Amino acid sequence: MANIREVAIRAGVAACTVSRVLNSSGYVSQEKRFKIEQAMKDLNYVPNELARSMFRKHSGIIAMIVPNIKHPFFSSLADSIEKELYKQGYKFMLCSSAQDIEREKAYIEMLKSNLVDGIILGTDYMDIEFYKNIEKPILLLDIDAGNDIPVVVSNHEKGGKLAAKVFIENKCKCIADITGGVHPEVLSYSSHINLRNELSLKHIEVLELEVAWTDFNFDKYFERAKEILIEYPKIDGVFAADMVAAAFLKASLYLGKKIPNEFKVIAYDGTYITNGGLMNITCIVQNLDKIAKEAVKNICYKIEGKIIKKRISVVDIVLRYGETT
Amino acid sequence: MANIREVAIRAGVAACTVSRVLNSSGYVSQEKRFKIEQAMKDLNYVPNELARSMFRKHSGIIAMIVPNIKHPFFSSLADSIEKELYKQGYKFMLCSSAQDIEREKAYIEMLKSNLVDGIILGTDYMDIEFYKNIEKPILLLDIDAGNDIPVVVSNHEKGGKLAAKVFIENKCKCIADITGGVHPEVLSYSSHINLRNELSLKHIEVLELEVAWTDFNFDKYFERAKEILIEYPKIDGVFAADMVAAAFLKASLYLGKKIPNEFKVIAYDGTYITNGGLMNITCIVQNLDKIAKEAVKNICYKIEGKIIKKRISVVDIVLRYGETT
Repeated sequence: MANIREVAIRAGVAACTVSRVLNSSGYVSQEKRFKIEQAMKDLNYVPNELARSMFRKHSGIIAMIVPNIKHPFFSSLADSIEKELYKQGYKFMLCSSAQDIEREKAYIEMLKSNLVDGIILGTDYMDIEFYKNIEKPILLLDIDAGNDIPVVVSNHEKGGKLAAKVFIENKCKCIADITGGVHPEVLSYSSHINLRNELSLKHIEVLELEVAWTDFNFDKYFERAKEILIEYPKIDGVFAADMVAAAFLKASLYLGKKIPNEFKVIAYDGTYITNGGLMNITCIVQNLDKIAKEAVKNICYKIEGKIIKKRISVVDIVLRYGETT
Repeated sequence: MANIREVAIRAGVAACTVSRVLNSSGYVSQEKRFKIEQAMKDLNYVPNELARSMFRKHSGIIAMIVPNIKHPFFSSLADSIEKELYKQGYKFMLCSSAQDIEREKAYIEMLKSNLVDGIILGTDYMDIEFYKNIEKPILLLDIDAGNDIPVVVSNHEKGGKLAAKVFIENKCKCIADITGGVHPEVLSYSSHINLRNELSLKHIEVLELEVAWTDFNFDKYFERAKEILIEYPKIDGVFAADMVAAAFLKASLYLGKKIPNEFKVIAYDGTYITNGGLMNITCIVQNLDKIAKEAVKNICYKIEGKIIKKRISVVDIVLRYGETT
């Protein structure tokens, strides 16, 4: 591949003039600029992005770290963020921590060492002290690490309350509140807290149960859902993340329960999983496009050194009725 | 952040000695090496990856370009590839061409300019001549551009034949063969060709219909499926990609058809979509882990300048029966 010197020779100018054009620094006459651009074209010259990034101190890439690439919530959100970043002229790089804190740190180290300009961190495997010591632009989804680190979060309090309202209206008596392997420090956990509070006010029993992520395997969710429903036949409603909710819906039908008369399902997140099956699942919908917009706006502000007015940006959440309540 | 000179001062050595340790080049005594490592720790020194990459001429990153991040086939395959790359010590960067050839080219340009060591290209928006002129390591999924570009592809001929066999056994009379916005040059298209050939040998009618990707929107698929089934009531079987197949299943039930007696559904790909709904969909399953293994092995060979024995690596495909045939 051609280098900067060959471009300079072909254009009949000094190498530093080519460099000025590349870096948009200093004066170059229109005539010389034209010759240089022509020479680059002729030689199929591609500037070495690494060298240019070092000079400009930025790479034009924003990375997003998620716990799992194929999880519909994260893949859908990544899709929205990619589209927003593209509008802002950034390239997008999606990395998976694979639910492993060491792997997450390895990707963050990459950020510290200039390969990317900023990171949007959407993970629940966390070391808050570690995040606080990152001096580069970072934005957290659903986690508040304090300092000046911007956060984008859905209104999970409202989410939990909306779900409770539906169970109450439906006169449910015993709700299974299913958590994943999520740390209670993750802000989305407040949907569970608010659900439980509202239900307890109405003296509705809540069983707090865990269904581990286990590499996002639907068959395992389905087996676990059957086990739970057999062990606790009194459960007449379930609140769980989309895919787990879908597994409970399938398991309840498998066990002969009538939906929605005998058993209600409310999913949390509202990705395509909730309307891609045979029954539309009633769900609490996170507004992914709005989350993406806020996250991209604030990470760009952070990179450009602008002041972010509201460090914690709260995005509204809505209820969408389906056929399971 | 500390720089290399500060590390050298603290360790009491010359900067070039620190550099030798960082780049594993030249002799450094055990004693000095220990002092340098200690100084790096004390100063929380992180080597500038950009500078190191320039020196080493590689970045340790392999990118994958897909047409859509949230498509279950691509997000699941990306997940498998990420895991394989991690085993090989590579970082993984997932980019979306968003079904736009210019965007795909922008990401490939990034490769040409050293930011990544190689690209795994899983897209159907293509310019084969453009791929041929890339001098850097690249691996294509489902596309053969000739030259020495390695390819990994599922045995789509077998896939189409397996689906035909099931329709024939089920005595279907009119099959809707649904294609997406896929170019016929994409190798997966041969599943459709083989399906049609096999069915025509048995004088079974085939309607070739297109359901456009349209940003992967299930509701639109569902509407289109209903339209098709109303327009062609004689259709008694459908062959389509997972999500579109799920939409046809839902539409056929919506229109009162009995599954599987009156209407058969066979999905292509076999991602979690096919067993995450209320009915398990009969499907042709691509072996994502095997595709990932082959792709990572061959892109690494390419980067290391090793010879790839079989340029086109064909991965076996299987039939998984569900409740829709």
